Amino acid sequence: MRPYGRALNALRPVEIIPGASAYAEGSCLIKFGGTHVLCAASVEEAVPAWLRGKGQGWVTAEYGMLPRATHQRTRREAAQGKQSGRTLEIQRLIGRSLRAVTDLKALGERQVTVDCDVIQADGGTRTAAITGAFVALKLACRYLVEEGVLERDPVYGQVAAVSCGLVAGTARLDLEYEEDRVAEADANFVLDAAGGVIEIQMTAEDKPVPEAAFMELLALAKAGIADLCAMQGKALGS
Amino acid sequence: MRPYGRALNALRPVEIIPGASAYAEGSCLIKFGGTHVLCAASVEEAVPAWLRGKGQGWVTAEYGMLPRATHQRTRREAAQGKQSGRTLEIQRLIGRSLRAVTDLKALGERQVTVDCDVIQADGGTRTAAITGAFVALKLACRYLVEEGVLERDPVYGQVAAVSCGLVAGTARLDLEYEEDRVAEADANFVLDAAGGVIEIQMTAEDKPVPEAAFMELLALAKAGIADLCAMQGKALGS
Amino acid sequence: MRPYGRALNALRPVEIIPGASAYAEGSCLIKFGGTHVLCAASVEEAVPAWLRGKGQGWVTAEYGMLPRATHQRTRREAAQGKQSGRTLEIQRLIGRSLRAVTDLKALGERQVTVDCDVIQADGGTRTAAITGAFVALKLACRYLVEEGVLERDPVYGQVAAVSCGLVAGTARLDLEYEEDRVAEADANFVLDAAGGVIEIQMTAEDKPVPEAAFMELLALAKAGIADLCAMQGKALGS
Amino acid sequence: MRPYGRALNALRPVEIIPGASAYAEGSCLIKFGGTHVLCAASVEEAVPAWLRGKGQGWVTAEYGMLPRATHQRTRREAAQGKQSGRTLEIQRLIGRSLRAVTDLKALGERQVTVDCDVIQADGGTRTAAITGAFVALKLACRYLVEEGVLERDPVYGQVAAVSCGLVAGTARLDLEYEEDRVAEADANFVLDAAGGVIEIQMTAEDKPVPEAAFMELLALAKAGIADLCAMQGKALGS
Amino acid sequence: MRPYGRALNALRPVEIIPGASAYAEGSCLIKFGGTHVLCAASVEEAVPAWLRGKGQGWVTAEYGMLPRATHQRTRREAAQGKQSGRTLEIQRLIGRSLRAVTDLKALGERQVTVDCDVIQADGGTRTAAITGAFVALKLACRYLVEEGVLERDPVYGQVAAVSCGLVAGTARLDLEYEEDRVAEADANFVLDAAGGVIEIQMTAEDKPVPEAAFMELLALAKAGIADLCAMQGKALGS
Amino acid sequence: MRPYGRALNALRPVEIIPGASAYAEGSCLIKFGGTHVLCAASVEEAVPAWLRGKGQGWVTAEYGMLPRATHQRTRREAAQGKQSGRTLEIQRLIGRSLRAVTDLKALGERQVTVDCDVIQADGGTRTAAITGAFVALKLACRYLVEEGVLERDPVYGQVAAVSCGLVAGTARLDLEYEEDRVAEADANFVLDAAGGVIEIQMTAEDKPVPEAAFMELLALAKAGIADLCAMQGKALGS
Repeated sequence: MRPYGRALNALRPVEIIPGASAYAEGSCLIKFGGTHVLCAASVEEAVPAWLRGKGQGWVTAEYGMLPRATHQRTRREAAQGKQSGRTLEIQRLIGRSLRAVTDLKALGERQVTVDCDVIQADGGTRTAAITGAFVALKLACRYLVEEGVLERDPVYGQVAAVSCGLVAGTARLDLEYEEDRVAEADANFVLDAAGGVIEIQMTAEDKPVPEAAFMELLALAKAGIADLCAMQGKALGS
Repeated sequence: MRPYGRALNALRPVEIIPGASAYAEGSCLIKFGGTHVLCAASVEEAVPAWLRGKGQGWVTAEYGMLPRATHQRTRREAAQGKQSGRTLEIQRLIGRSLRAVTDLKALGERQVTVDCDVIQADGGTRTAAITGAFVALKLACRYLVEEGVLERDPVYGQVAAVSCGLVAGTARLDLEYEEDRVAEADANFVLDAAGGVIEIQMTAEDKPVPEAAFMELLALAKAGIADLCAMQGKALGS
Repeated sequence: MRPYGRALNALRPVEIIPGASAYAEGSCLIKFGGTHVLCAASVEEAVPAWLRGKGQGWVTAEYGMLPRATHQRTRREAAQGKQSGRTLEIQRLIGRSLRAVTDLKALGERQVTVDCDVIQADGGTRTAAITGAFVALKLACRYLVEEGVLERDPVYGQVAAVSCGLVAGTARLDLEYEEDRVAEADANFVLDAAGGVIEIQMTAEDKPVPEAAFMELLALAKAGIADLCAMQGKALGS
Repeated sequence: MRPYGRALNALRPVEIIPGASAYAEGSCLIKFGGTHVLCAASVEEAVPAWLRGKGQGWVTAEYGMLPRATHQRTRREAAQGKQSGRTLEIQRLIGRSLRAVTDLKALGERQVTVDCDVIQADGGTRTAAITGAFVALKLACRYLVEEGVLERDPVYGQVAAVSCGLVAGTARLDLEYEEDRVAEADANFVLDAAGGVIEIQMTAEDKPVPEAAFMELLALAKAGIADLCAMQGKALGS
Repeated sequence: MRPYGRALNALRPVEIIPGASAYAEGSCLIKFGGTHVLCAASVEEAVPAWLRGKGQGWVTAEYGMLPRATHQRTRREAAQGKQSGRTLEIQRLIGRSLRAVTDLKALGERQVTVDCDVIQADGGTRTAAITGAFVALKLACRYLVEEGVLERDPVYGQVAAVSCGLVAGTARLDLEYEEDRVAEADANFVLDAAGGVIEIQMTAEDKPVPEAAFMELLALAKAGIADLCAMQGKALGS
Repeated sequence: MRPYGRALNALRPVEIIPGASAYAEGSCLIKFGGTHVLCAASVEEAVPAWLRGKGQGWVTAEYGMLPRATHQRTRREAAQGKQSGRTLEIQRLIGRSLRAVTDLKALGERQVTVDCDVIQADGGTRTAAITGAFVALKLACRYLVEEGVLERDPVYGQVAAVSCGLVAGTARLDLEYEEDRVAEADANFVLDAAGGVIEIQMTAEDKPVPEAAFMELLALAKAGIADLCAMQGKALGS
């Protein structure tokens, strides 16, 4: 039996609290069980230097983790003087996922940066971050429309993400830390509300895994992401 | 009239929520009005290299601020590759304040690191951090005693902190951001429960201020810190 | 018609030249068309600090690109003072891929570092690097067996990698730079000789792509990797 | 008895040698006993980016210490790749102190940087630096007036600084290194010639100290700074 | 007898392969025996900020070494976060050598960067790099003339370089690694085709060497560089 | 006529003040006209990690320049986060020069670090630094002998250095800044008291120079260094 008494194909209890940041143009606190991520979207009326004058905007993300978000304290990246390869990898992934559902020309020459900061980590922080970042981005764009800055919402799609893994040969949805630690394979899926593929990443931990196992993980993810999209919709009041 | 309808010598509403972190040996979320700081104490069974073999422990602190804790987004220190002078200054201050009420020999050869991460910032983040860090440290040491690691609590004193400032020539307790922005002088006081002085820092913003004004700020701080100590006591259930 | 007159499901001309480095314990120069990567495996009789005393070895990789390997000169990472997120991501991927076919206990307390340096880049550098790194690692381990350092070869599997992509809605194997630049989706597959999955990464560029398209890419990759494994075998003289 | 045969409320022998740098627009070598600091003010006809177009100037300071200024050699910050928290704290303090007596609008869109480099350190380097930096700044501004660049001197006040401390329960003025090492509390005062407060910093070393002790330190500082202001005046020939 | 059966005043077998890079405006692979350096010249239609608007161009060089170019693996500079003092010294030397034979005004407001990357190292990498970098620069400028960007070739001279050393008291030309390791003195000469001096660097390893020994090294170098200039001419087809 | 009314083959007025640092084991302030360098030798009872257990010591040097040592302020290296290529080059040169006259085995397993800090710069800082560093090293070793740490002085030779240059086609000894700025060639010579060669560096500025010119510079240097050695001897009281 898995913690929370859940089935192999069940998500952990998910909670999305919009407006969790007092100052951000769009924000939410998202919880996948014991994994809590604060997602805050900031709008800036300028684009990075390499995009200037091209008549389009940019959406990007930054990812961080509080040192004691984890079971054991991890070193603070700011004190170490650099972001780890893992951090850079995750924030690039979040940014790509958001841009895949945004019309950057419709955004105009402005940038939205979504900060995803892990307050507490119990597995699946990157997929929770993507799912929450979408809500924060959507709220920020809605704010820009309400303020009259934009005529229409440039976010035309809906994106969510979930992790799956093989534990003791069995496919499971939405791994928590204790499962992730012993998984034979770990996969992250980023899909849109219609099941379109935005990003797939699968890693075998110790040795190769059969293609059929990968297919099982993909099937679990599709169902899980459909549920997450419904929860995003509810949090967005639509 | 000040926001929250408070008097010049009143604190903002203060809330201290112990146990806010699922994994830390001691923690709290502290709120001074709109300023929210998560304080998490981590115990490590080792001391820094320069203290090895000296038969004593160490207490230190790290400070950080989420990029969108502030009205305008600030750049992420991890992405910039270094902690700012302001950050280093604050975390050194927190560490000194905690060590001033701790018997490092009684702690034994172990280190407690208190991470103070500002989730939302509305002025006074360093004084809120010190006040909350004390609670986190105390809870971590209590845990060490309960676990039988330590025979007695090495934290023999109680420390809290508050900011005061001169706004339009008038002394005020516990400035929030909009007051701080226009203050002629800004001071931080770190005192113990008996009014003993641990740290005083006063800075005139534009031009020197009279000594009498400084004395008024000190008087406000003493009363405010007495109140904060009471609230710490309540949060600690003592 | 694609350059080299090749079909949509054809690899570019592949060449694997073993022993390309005069000093490395194992090495090859691998060419996927205009993409040339020098792979050199170095054996060190020590493991990283976090592995000491655990009775096992480690296999890791580093990736770099000469500044003028590319159509336009890119800035030298050593001069910039850090490796890019892309570089870190790629070298982590190469390392994981090699470890998935290696028995680290059988390697003993030593480390093999495989340096993959791109001399010329025309798309698919990371998949060429993985395919060549396997050959370099295998040769280094064979050398350790011949020298009597190891009793048996700790590399028990065979790994190769290829990229695939959707260009104008059509799935293609082994993209070169001009194709990659305009692809709607870009995927990297790392499989073993038996078709077991080691790593899958797919990224949609602008908008989500149908699951069926992903399946086509996977099918192309399986055939391409089988061919690459045969070429590795030939280069290894087995 | 204290070294130099001085009383508890006496400064060490102080010497201020104006014009110690051949090239700087204003400079002095200041000695507080065995503590020697070279202060050199450089004028630049530009302000930092964030101040451009605001019709005002900027005064800032940098602080450094020669590696063998100290009893034991300390590591060179340039070789370590960063300035320590202590260095950043001190140079921020010097800059604030100077700005508190300068009319930045009257300075016009130019910047004065005062480099304070410790040639020899025997306690109290930051207070000697502030006291000398004022002289260097004043000389640089006088030069700008003499050259016709400025119509009037933008430095309207006079600032000096001194350290005080509690040693064996007794308040002492202007600690040297051997006293500082054993002090129970250490304070730095930055006042203007009229006794106005610019900056106060007090730190208890091991445990809290009574408020009355702090008041004694403040009284000592006021007298000491009045003497230092007289010596600055003499060095400036006014 | 020296390796390659060569006399004390003989160069190692030298090979210069022009056009070794597919994309660079000018390039060659140069081999001095077992030392192989890839030299690639990149033209950029802009000059560094400090040269803008001065009506002249710039020629600069960067130097790197693959980690396993050497007998033992060396650490990757990009991973260490900085270029070593040795690397900086060498690339400054290459740049100065090239500028000494180039009319920077005739180059116009553009920059040529010559990347010298050591693929394999067996002593004398910096002198091989200078000799090859000249060929790459010359080819790039010829390309600019052919493309009509420049009216005439701004490279008016010819530069080559060689190392010499004292081994067991005897002067030798063009040291390889095993000789260099035991040399009593090591010198690098950069001369033009007419024997004009561009750069001389001599270093005694353990103790001073007689002036006469230095003169012998200089004589060897003059003859060796004349030969290298002839080989450059042949590679350039002139 | 040159400044100081000196002839083409004359040194600037030279002054060597031994014992200029209160704490260093050996030190001097050396002046070559307007160039002033503080040289301080620090003894440490340990060697760098790579030398441990080899039964020998190490002599090394670090070089720095105060930001306003120069006519125009230069940026502080500590604030920039790294030492420039020029700084690294110079400190490596000083260290090599000192080691060339020291018996490292006789020094035992200890390290002497000579800090050379330029207080004022008017050309020739590196040669003044070498000449002064020798005096500081010698005094430190004499101290070690007097203290009974060493039985005999491990510094068996004597080293000094001077710059020479071609200005308007004429060879000159010991260039100052205004001459250096316009020189056609610039050379630094490091010789021992007997004229033995330790290091020679010559750089043509714009175009190659005749070998004969180099020979003139060498002749000037030999005479100048003989004079400098005499002055070192006097400063050392021998």
